[in-house]
Amino acid sequence: MHGYTANKDDILKRLRRIEGQVRGLQRLVDEDTYCIDVLTQVSATTKALQSFGLTMLEDHLYSCVADAIAEGGDGARDKVQEASQAIARMVRT
Amino acid sequence: MHGYTANKDDILKRLRRIEGQVRGLQRLVDEDTYCIDVLTQVSATTKALQSFGLTMLEDHLYSCVADAIAEGGDGARDKVQEASQAIARMVRT
Amino acid sequence: MHGYTANKDDILKRLRRIEGQVRGLQRLVDEDTYCIDVLTQVSATTKALQSFGLTMLEDHLYSCVADAIAEGGDGARDKVQEASQAIARMVRT
Amino acid sequence: MHGYTANKDDILKRLRRIEGQVRGLQRLVDEDTYCIDVLTQVSATTKALQSFGLTMLEDHLYSCVADAIAEGGDGARDKVQEASQAIARMVRT
Repeated sequence: MHGYTANKDDILKRLRRIEGQVRGLQRLVDEDTYCIDVLTQVSATTKALQSFGLTMLEDHLYSCVADAIAEGGDGARDKVQEASQAIARMVRT
Repeated sequence: MHGYTANKDDILKRLRRIEGQVRGLQRLVDEDTYCIDVLTQVSATTKALQSFGLTMLEDHLYSCVADAIAEGGDGARDKVQEASQAIARMVRT
Repeated sequence: MHGYTANKDDILKRLRRIEGQVRGLQRLVDEDTYCIDVLTQVSATTKALQSFGLTMLEDHLYSCVADAIAEGGDGARDKVQEASQAIARMVRT
Repeated sequence: MHGYTANKDDILKRLRRIEGQVRGLQRLVDEDTYCIDVLTQVSATTKALQSFGLTMLEDHLYSCVADAIAEGGDGARDKVQEASQAIARMVRT
């Protein structure tokens, strides 16, 4: 069980919408749409992916990381470090 | 004709790969994969989208914007401004 | 006391270095340095600020957020939510 | 002469303000300010640096890159490539 398990259906719906946005990009390119309009859709799709990631991160902090902290010991420091590395990857993309 | 038209097949192939990455995210969630592993894939997919956008932008600068600059007049300033706004959206996602 | 208090001297040293980078930008502009070289220094300064923020965030997760989680109750959810909003701001800049 | 030379005074004023924001961060840390409030100021400073970079980039596109395009030949492709690499660095910070 993970923090997101309880919201799995919503999460999968969100990911299917993002999949649809990427297919929408393919249609725009296929129809020779003006570059800037394609780039606007790229930014919208990137934003959707980002906010999906932020939701998953919050669930993770409030479940997996919180559980490790409640148990205490080295497990807590490892979980916080692991989450911080994931946050760094998100910040740098 | 746009800057990317000559590379349309490569571009569509790239977008289909990104679509596959998003479907891969759905599989990870469906299989209750550990949150951090899902987040790692989110960052990889975001990076693929970003570098797709950067390639499209470079093509745009070297075709549509360059043509407008070569013609001169207000069209050039508008095209540079439009490209700068697209760049700002990319930087802020 | 906050997570960063124990490392205050290092943190202040880091911030003074970033301040120096911003003053370095002023010198580059003052000396009519080529735009791309100025932009390269802007990216380096932004990166230094970002990694400063990521260090502060990790300290916060491992101190303030961990303490609130250990105490349990609503305080824990509020702290996680507050940290997630700070992470969202970092991701979107 | 570069694209930004005509606005040098405004640019230097903007950079001095960003320098002030970084010194403000030092004060916050020195006064043991709550981590989240420091992180909020980090995001605000990062945003100010980013929009400074975007302004400089637009000036560069409309001057140095435009001039190279107007002259034509390999110089134009090099300038567009160089600008695209600077944009990639900005997007990835």
